[in-house]
Amino acid sequence: MPQSSANPTTTAASSLPNFTDPTLAPNLRTWVESANDPASDFPIQNLPLGLVEDEEGTPLLVVRVGDSLVLLDLLIHSGALADDGEDGELPDDHPMHILHAAAHHGMPLPIMQYPSCWSWARKALQKFLLDGPAGGQQMRRLREKAVRPVSEFNLVPPVWAANYTDFYASIHHAKTVGSMFRPENPLLPNYRHVPIGYHGRSSSLVGSGTEIRRPMGQTKADTAESPTFGPSQRLDYELELGCVIAGQNDVGDGVTIDEAPGRIFGFVLVNDWSARDMQAWEYQPLGPFLAKNFATSVSPWIVTAEALAPFRTTGPARDAGEPQPLEYLRGSGASTHWNLDMHLEVLIASESMRKAGTAPVRISLANFKDCMYWNFPQLITHHGSNGCNLMPGDLLASGTISGPDMQQRGCLLERTWAGHGPDGKPAPRQPIMLPTGEKRIFLEDGDEVIMRAWCQRDGYRRIGLGEVRNIVVPAKARS
Amino acid sequence: MPQSSANPTTTAASSLPNFTDPTLAPNLRTWVESANDPASDFPIQNLPLGLVEDEEGTPLLVVRVGDSLVLLDLLIHSGALADDGEDGELPDDHPMHILHAAAHHGMPLPIMQYPSCWSWARKALQKFLLDGPAGGQQMRRLREKAVRPVSEFNLVPPVWAANYTDFYASIHHAKTVGSMFRPENPLLPNYRHVPIGYHGRSSSLVGSGTEIRRPMGQTKADTAESPTFGPSQRLDYELELGCVIAGQNDVGDGVTIDEAPGRIFGFVLVNDWSARDMQAWEYQPLGPFLAKNFATSVSPWIVTAEALAPFRTTGPARDAGEPQPLEYLRGSGASTHWNLDMHLEVLIASESMRKAGTAPVRISLANFKDCMYWNFPQLITHHGSNGCNLMPGDLLASGTISGPDMQQRGCLLERTWAGHGPDGKPAPRQPIMLPTGEKRIFLEDGDEVIMRAWCQRDGYRRIGLGEVRNIVVPAKARS
Repeated sequence: MPQSSANPTTTAASSLPNFTDPTLAPNLRTWVESANDPASDFPIQNLPLGLVEDEEGTPLLVVRVGDSLVLLDLLIHSGALADDGEDGELPDDHPMHILHAAAHHGMPLPIMQYPSCWSWARKALQKFLLDGPAGGQQMRRLREKAVRPVSEFNLVPPVWAANYTDFYASIHHAKTVGSMFRPENPLLPNYRHVPIGYHGRSSSLVGSGTEIRRPMGQTKADTAESPTFGPSQRLDYELELGCVIAGQNDVGDGVTIDEAPGRIFGFVLVNDWSARDMQAWEYQPLGPFLAKNFATSVSPWIVTAEALAPFRTTGPARDAGEPQPLEYLRGSGASTHWNLDMHLEVLIASESMRKAGTAPVRISLANFKDCMYWNFPQLITHHGSNGCNLMPGDLLASGTISGPDMQQRGCLLERTWAGHGPDGKPAPRQPIMLPTGEKRIFLEDGDEVIMRAWCQRDGYRRIGLGEVRNIVVPAKARS
Repeated sequence: MPQSSANPTTTAASSLPNFTDPTLAPNLRTWVESANDPASDFPIQNLPLGLVEDEEGTPLLVVRVGDSLVLLDLLIHSGALADDGEDGELPDDHPMHILHAAAHHGMPLPIMQYPSCWSWARKALQKFLLDGPAGGQQMRRLREKAVRPVSEFNLVPPVWAANYTDFYASIHHAKTVGSMFRPENPLLPNYRHVPIGYHGRSSSLVGSGTEIRRPMGQTKADTAESPTFGPSQRLDYELELGCVIAGQNDVGDGVTIDEAPGRIFGFVLVNDWSARDMQAWEYQPLGPFLAKNFATSVSPWIVTAEALAPFRTTGPARDAGEPQPLEYLRGSGASTHWNLDMHLEVLIASESMRKAGTAPVRISLANFKDCMYWNFPQLITHHGSNGCNLMPGDLLASGTISGPDMQQRGCLLERTWAGHGPDGKPAPRQPIMLPTGEKRIFLEDGDEVIMRAWCQRDGYRRIGLGEVRNIVVPAKARS
C-alpha cells in the first residue's frame, strides 16, 4: 500500500459540484481484484493510457487497472471491444478505427489527435473489465492473455511530445523563489498578468525508473573570478503536473479560453530535474537551458480529464486588489472550473535508506488547487494566444507546485530555505533530516526521488496518477 | 539574377587553407544548364537536400541543382545511382539502403541519422548530373522525368526538428541589444564563458513562402499601469544560420568538442520572427516565449558541411584580456576551424513596392565569420555538456547574426537603433527609408522579408543557401 494512503485527505463533497457519470459510479467493481482495493490509484473508474515494451522492445499500448494492464492490440483483435450488434463492418467514423491504428503501431498519438475515441474506449473497456463470471472458456483465456501483471513489462514514457512547455503557474513557488533574490519585491510586475512559461527539451523526456545522471556544467561561485566546469553541486527535483494536449490548432489560429478545456486529454506527473548552480550562472538573459534539459521524467499513465472530472474545482480566490486576468484569459463555464482537488507528495530514499530497508520518507505534501494562480485552460489559451499551434500529445507542465507552507514546497530550493533572518539576510538553509541521520539540502548521488498524486472525495473512488521515481547516479566526465 | 550577386565579395584564397575535394572542383559542369551560371547558388558542387510536395501533397525528397530539382525516389528506382558493377544485390550496409528508405517515405531523417550515406549520394548524384550526352533514349527520358523545374513543386521546410534550440552567439548582437538597456555594462558577466541559448518551439517552424501572421499578445507601455492584449506593434525579423544535426548521442553522454564537427550535417537560413513589445513584457524571469514561438521560418535547402568545406575558417580573434573558453569548449583540429566565410543579407519589400514593381532593397549585409563569438562545434558541445541528447535533424540556430557596423545588424531592433545621445539617453530610432518614401522602424503588414546567404572564394564555385522569404499578414483576433 503506498504511504500516501495512510493518511488520505478527503474533501467534503459539498464543496465540489455534484457530478454524475455512470463510468465513475463508485459501486462499479472489476474481476481484476487488485483494482477493487479502495487504496488503489487505478480502479475501473480510472483506466489511464500507458505505453510499455515487451521483452523484444516492441511498444505496446496498454491501459492500467489495479496491478495489471490491459494489452489493447490483443483485446481489439479478439473482437471483445466491439459494441453489441457490431459484429459486421464498422462505419468509417467509428472510434474503433483510431484505437486500432494506435494500438497496432504502439503509438498513443492518434488517440490524442482524435480524443473522443478514448471516451468510447473507456466505456468499452469498462464493460470488458466489469465484475462477473467470464462465461466460457474463450473469454477466460482472453482475460488471462489480455490482462497481465504490470511487472511483466518495461514502462516507457507515455508522452511522445515533440513540444514540451514548462510554466511557472504556482504563485507560492514564484513568491518564495523571488523572495530569495528580491525580498522587497518577490513577484515580478508581469506575474499577475502573464502566465509565465518557456520551452523545455523534449528529447530528454524519460520515464519512471530511468537513472538520472548528475549533470556536468559551468557554475560560478559569487566569490570566484571565473566559472569552472564540473558536476552540479545543487541538483534538485521539481514536482509538477503535466497536461497532455488533445487535438490541434493551426499556426495563426490559437485556442480561445472556452475551447481550452476541450484540448485537455489528461495528466501525468512531471519531475523537472534542475541544477540550481548551473541555472544561476546561465539563465540571464534567455532563461534556463542546460540547468533543465539533461532530463525531465514523467509518470507512466496518462489519467484522463474524464476520470478526473469529479475533482475539478475553482482556483484559489484572488486577493482583494489583485488585477483581474485580461479578457482573453477570462472564461465562462468549464474553463473557470478547471483547477484540480489533487494531492501531490514527494518522497525521498537515500542509498543508505534503501540498503537498510527503510521506507522512503515524505518531504512535501500539497494540494494542486491551493497552489495554482493560473489553471490549465488559461495556460493553454495563453500559449496559443499568439497563434502558436498546440499539437496532439504536447506536454504542458504546471511549473513547480508549491503551497504557502514550508512542507508544501515542491522543490529543495524552496523546501530547505529558511527565509530571511531578522537582519534581512537569508537565514542558513534548513536541511531535511533522513531516518539514517543523513541530511539533505540538495540531492546526493544514490538518492531516489518519488512523486505521487491522487484525488479523493466522498462518494467517488480514489483516482491516482501513480508515481514517477528515479535514482540519481554520479556525473560522467567526458573529454 | 539575385541582387546579392551584383556585388560579390570574394575572399583572397590565401587567407583560407588550401582545400581539395574532387566533388568541389570548379571545372565540373552539368547538363542542367542553369547550374553552370557562376551566379547560381546551386552548382553541381553544392547539391543540397530538400523536401517538396507534389500536387497531391505527397512529400518528396529532392536535391536542388540550378533552377531544377532531382526527384530522389524516382532516380533510385531507375537504378541510375548504383555504382558500377552494383547491378546485383547490394551489401546490407550499403548507403543506398538508407537513401532508399528516406526517399521512399519522403523523410529526410534517416539521412541525418546515418550522414555518411549522403557523402555517397552526393558523389553518385554528381556522376548522374555531370555534363555529357545522355547516351540513349532511356537516359534522356530519365533526365526529363527525374530532373524537374523547382517551380512545379510546393516547397516545405526540410527540417523536421523535434527539438529547436536558439543561441545568442553573435557578440555584436549581444552588445548592441545589451547597450540599449545597460549602456554602462552591455555584456552580462556570463557571455564570454557560456554559449547562451534557449529552447525554441519546433511545431511552428514554417517554410519559405508561408505567410507570417502578426501575433496578438500582452504588452505594457512603460507609462501604462496595466498591460493590454492586441496585435504586436514591434514585429521584427532575426537573421540566423541554422545547423542541422547529424547522428545521435544518448541521454547522459554528451558530445566532446572534437566529436562536434562530425555532428554537423548542414545549414539552413533561419528567420526567428520576434515581437519585441511582447518580449519586453514577458521575458522575465524565464526568457522569451510567445514573443518568438508564433513562427520561425527556414530556407528550403540543407546545404551540407561537405559543400561548405572550402569556406571554413577560424573565428574572430579574441581581444587581449578576454578569457579563454573553458577546456571542454577548447578543441584541436577541425573544431577550431569551424567558422564560415559566409555572406548574409536581409532585403525588404513593402506591399507598395511590390505593387509598383520595385525590387526588394537590401537593409543589411554581414559576414558570419566576423560576427560569431562561439562557433557551431562549441555550441554543439556546450548543448551536450550536461548530457543532453542531440538527435538527428535537430535544429541549432546561431542567434541573430550582427556585425559591428549598423549596416551589418541582423534585426530591426538593432538596425534602427541610433545609439545613445551625448546626454547618455537613447537617441531617437533611425528609420529605414524605402524607395517608395515609406519608413520602417519595425515591420508593417504586407512587408516581405527576404534573407539570403552565399559563400564565394577564388578557385571555387559559389555555394549558396538560397533564400527564405515571407510576407507579414495582419493579426487575427479570436474570442
